[in-house]
Amino acid sequence: MRSDRFLLACNRKPVDATPIWIMRQAGRYLKEYRDIREEFDFLTLCKTPEAAARVTLLPIEKFDLDAAILFADIMLPLEGMGIDFDIVESVGPVIEKPVRTLADLRRLRVGHPEESVPYVLETVRLARQRLAGRVPLIGFAGAPFTLASYIIEGKPSKEFILTKRLMLTEPITWHALMELLTETVSEYLKAQIKAGAQAVQLFDSWVGALAPKDYSEFVLPYTKRIFSVLKECNVPRIHFGVITASLLEQIKETGADVIGVDWRIPLDQAWNVIGYDKSIQGNLDPVVLFASHDVVQNHVEEILRQANNRPGHIFNLGHGIMPDTPPENVAFLIDLVHRLSANERAKA
Amino acid sequence: MRSDRFLLACNRKPVDATPIWIMRQAGRYLKEYRDIREEFDFLTLCKTPEAAARVTLLPIEKFDLDAAILFADIMLPLEGMGIDFDIVESVGPVIEKPVRTLADLRRLRVGHPEESVPYVLETVRLARQRLAGRVPLIGFAGAPFTLASYIIEGKPSKEFILTKRLMLTEPITWHALMELLTETVSEYLKAQIKAGAQAVQLFDSWVGALAPKDYSEFVLPYTKRIFSVLKECNVPRIHFGVITASLLEQIKETGADVIGVDWRIPLDQAWNVIGYDKSIQGNLDPVVLFASHDVVQNHVEEILRQANNRPGHIFNLGHGIMPDTPPENVAFLIDLVHRLSANERAKA
Repeated sequence: MRSDRFLLACNRKPVDATPIWIMRQAGRYLKEYRDIREEFDFLTLCKTPEAAARVTLLPIEKFDLDAAILFADIMLPLEGMGIDFDIVESVGPVIEKPVRTLADLRRLRVGHPEESVPYVLETVRLARQRLAGRVPLIGFAGAPFTLASYIIEGKPSKEFILTKRLMLTEPITWHALMELLTETVSEYLKAQIKAGAQAVQLFDSWVGALAPKDYSEFVLPYTKRIFSVLKECNVPRIHFGVITASLLEQIKETGADVIGVDWRIPLDQAWNVIGYDKSIQGNLDPVVLFASHDVVQNHVEEILRQANNRPGHIFNLGHGIMPDTPPENVAFLIDLVHRLSANERAKA
Repeated sequence: MRSDRFLLACNRKPVDATPIWIMRQAGRYLKEYRDIREEFDFLTLCKTPEAAARVTLLPIEKFDLDAAILFADIMLPLEGMGIDFDIVESVGPVIEKPVRTLADLRRLRVGHPEESVPYVLETVRLARQRLAGRVPLIGFAGAPFTLASYIIEGKPSKEFILTKRLMLTEPITWHALMELLTETVSEYLKAQIKAGAQAVQLFDSWVGALAPKDYSEFVLPYTKRIFSVLKECNVPRIHFGVITASLLEQIKETGADVIGVDWRIPLDQAWNVIGYDKSIQGNLDPVVLFASHDVVQNHVEEILRQANNRPGHIFNLGHGIMPDTPPENVAFLIDLVHRLSANERAKA
């Protein structure tokens, strides 16, 4: 059963219990991960398929999770576009030469995954093989807006001022950059699926900085194109972003099969907007995992009540799990989601 | 007319043109302000009523704005609670000894404005006098959640992890801190009104980090109490926060007369949720003010179309104006809002 739940839920088919996976489930909250990081710096780890596949499987061996997600970073395919970056500990992606003008754009090209990120594709193959059907493997990529925000700001941002400013004041530069990113990301995800990914998640994490009107004009067409290109691959396509409460009308137009939402919007309200012909993923506040079991249970019960046993709910946090999260609370959460949702189904 | 528009709109009475004021309208985008800052560091400026009143009036003398807002900082009343802080240039408020335990709380007390911030009250009196009825004067305070976030994090935060963690894991400490802040803020705003403020805005800027359920439990009761205490003062009470799209059902319960929203939610959707028995304030993305007049006009027209000439719209940005904003675009915006909204009213 464990092997089926996630993909069934992506297709809105009935399941014995609500499937759960956790964004950044192979991350720093795991001692096993921190131990591996003693041997490899972050980018070397991403570029070493044997180790990256091992990390991909870590949380699956430790917890009763319903899906594995490729261990990689959204920045990796940018190298093939001609963008040099570094991942700085406790800062994030840093780009020495941000792209802010049409002249800067001339340095860039479409990145081709077989040439620029063969190690990611090899990680996918290895991880898929080692999972041996226990649970499905999710591939992923950053979405054009979110990647553009790093490329333009040059580092993680809170308000994305330079990004939005370029978008609104230099639309030609903006659209040219989005074109390059759209093609790069589409090829990247297609290659991951070809290598064995059984679902893909497009992280447009920071898109919630935009007004709906600007999202529609400057972002939606590109996201739509990516999901449209992927349709022929016949695997579930997940869209994820934070602070998307007032963008959901637009996000449902992207063509994704599953929409991930954060904790800011009640799951039932979100599902009502995106429509019951789509699956929904989410949406526990990651900070809840620091609290007592009572508080965790209280929040999980609320989310399951909102999901109302409707086929198509995939439980997840509303954003990545935090580095200091106690792993025993992760085990508690996973068991709780399975147990409570199975009970509800038994009652129904 | 200019003197009446803002207060009329707060009371949902018809106006000749939509009133506009701008959060941080007396800020760094003005050369005149930067010149004054050559003489005073930020906190000294806040604590020098003559100069703070002068800064309060700067944008009124320069632009056709419909309200002035007190020049001050949300951190000021914390000093009277026993919290030492500094405002660090291009960082923001920094607190050397953050409050994170019940023991830390023992250092704190309710702050009384006449003792701890007499200079703010004097600024209100001076500014009101110098405005001489040209436009009304808005007073303001930070709301308990937003102040708590600085007190707990010790500095500006992106994700408010320590704040939410304390709230969820140490509810007794949380509620005790919120009690102290609620009383301090209530007294502070009452004193500003007594000194001459003709409306007050409560900035709960960062409350959008919370799930609606947690907002209801940990924040709403306190905000409600502040607005309830202020009711007898008979001046319009404005609530403002960013990323509140999915909190509006709760925020309308705070008892505010005017709800400020950011650009992430279309104004018509927001108004529909908060109800037409309340006024609405907003909601242009501040980054739009870097763009061409065409782009500005396009965005302003959309907002006015959504407001639909309904009495009770106060135009504002969705957050504070940015330091590099070209002042000529501010003049263009103010004129545009007045002109387009007056035309619409003439047609109706």
